Amino acid sequence: MSQHLILVTNDDGVHAPGIHALYEAVSSLGEAVIVAPERDNSAVSHSLTMNRPLRVVQLERHIHTIDGTPTDCVTIAINKILRRKPDLLVSGINPGANLGDDISYSGTVSAAIEGTMYSIPSLAFSLGGNPPFDFEVTAAVAWKLASMALAMHLPPNSLLNINIPPLAAGEIRGIRFTRQGRRIYRDAIQETFDPWGRKHYWIGGGVAHWSGGDDTDAEAMRNGYISVTPIQLDLTNHAGLAYLERQWQM
Amino acid sequence: MSQHLILVTNDDGVHAPGIHALYEAVSSLGEAVIVAPERDNSAVSHSLTMNRPLRVVQLERHIHTIDGTPTDCVTIAINKILRRKPDLLVSGINPGANLGDDISYSGTVSAAIEGTMYSIPSLAFSLGGNPPFDFEVTAAVAWKLASMALAMHLPPNSLLNINIPPLAAGEIRGIRFTRQGRRIYRDAIQETFDPWGRKHYWIGGGVAHWSGGDDTDAEAMRNGYISVTPIQLDLTNHAGLAYLERQWQM
Repeated sequence: MSQHLILVTNDDGVHAPGIHALYEAVSSLGEAVIVAPERDNSAVSHSLTMNRPLRVVQLERHIHTIDGTPTDCVTIAINKILRRKPDLLVSGINPGANLGDDISYSGTVSAAIEGTMYSIPSLAFSLGGNPPFDFEVTAAVAWKLASMALAMHLPPNSLLNINIPPLAAGEIRGIRFTRQGRRIYRDAIQETFDPWGRKHYWIGGGVAHWSGGDDTDAEAMRNGYISVTPIQLDLTNHAGLAYLERQWQM
Repeated sequence: MSQHLILVTNDDGVHAPGIHALYEAVSSLGEAVIVAPERDNSAVSHSLTMNRPLRVVQLERHIHTIDGTPTDCVTIAINKILRRKPDLLVSGINPGANLGDDISYSGTVSAAIEGTMYSIPSLAFSLGGNPPFDFEVTAAVAWKLASMALAMHLPPNSLLNINIPPLAAGEIRGIRFTRQGRRIYRDAIQETFDPWGRKHYWIGGGVAHWSGGDDTDAEAMRNGYISVTPIQLDLTNHAGLAYLERQWQM
């Protein structure tokens, strides 16, 4: 059997410490290749760059960078850089959790969505908490989950969104398979002024509040568990479809 | 009863003809307010701008523009511009369909996702076909569906992704409530060279192929129907969650 081929990407850029921790972790599982954005692309979501050409620069034998988004990196890696379709895609390690509704904004998760569209088992890794981030424990968790993903099937047309609490190895209470929680509130737009006194708005900050149940990603993290959520490509509300057919008489 | 308040946005920018057709269409249903990006933001997906402050410019009494993404526009409109939470959000009209997996990249749809996160009934409108686009028929359809959305409930935590075929009014065969289709193939990366002879990749072009069944968005459009797909915020693969709990022994 040939060696596993593993695509490693992120949204924080090729120089971020999280991606190098992840690359080291999965290198023992096969041939790992980094294809990552040149620069920080946090909160770019599933953006695709279509209004200009993109350049690939090979920094080292197994490290490539692209002047684009995480989604650009995945599609160009698969179609133009790698010699065959990879057996696994890992994205991250993001410094900061990606939970609940907020995963919709996440470049880390979107890279894994793109991989899933190509039918590649794809894992997104995020480390909760605040700076400074220490990726050592998370890298060990990433190794373990990447091994599982190479040995077992993922749910069909789904990626795994993995969040790891910022705890010492002995303090992590285990793994919980979770559903995506709902963000119910965040006060997250600051007002600021430019040098000419004109008001501007700066999105960010604030504290997210999550809605409930022990079975959500946010709740697992709060209780010291690694959260593993299967995220699917199909966004259809199938129950809602039946409701519309019944009630919306056009 | 007070007048309906309707937020109008898009991803093609405040000067795009599609948003003005939509604004005119919904103006008869209440007070319509445009808050849209300054410039084209196609394929930005659910990007949120957090690395710099954003400026709101009021162009006319009911038209504001922001130097950011569709998602930025929606969150700032709701929190900082509108005097109260709107009764309806309409996004578009996008020139070009937003179908199947591709809606994941769409700024038009993402604006409606953001509205749904604020519990605002939200509709994304796209017109299929190729340039030149004539928004007249689509605007009439948008008026009808916006009226319905003000009168009826939408499925919970869901937006409606609406695609209209590029046909004369008499040629449209009706409305179909659909599920999101799967894109199975697209050849969409061109190779090009910069003035110094360095190879670049340009994402775009190609022809999408869709997988099947009469009940998908792409198939409804192909057959001359307006496609209305309920898209939900919850991305969890609930069946996949049960599978993981059963099979992945960690």
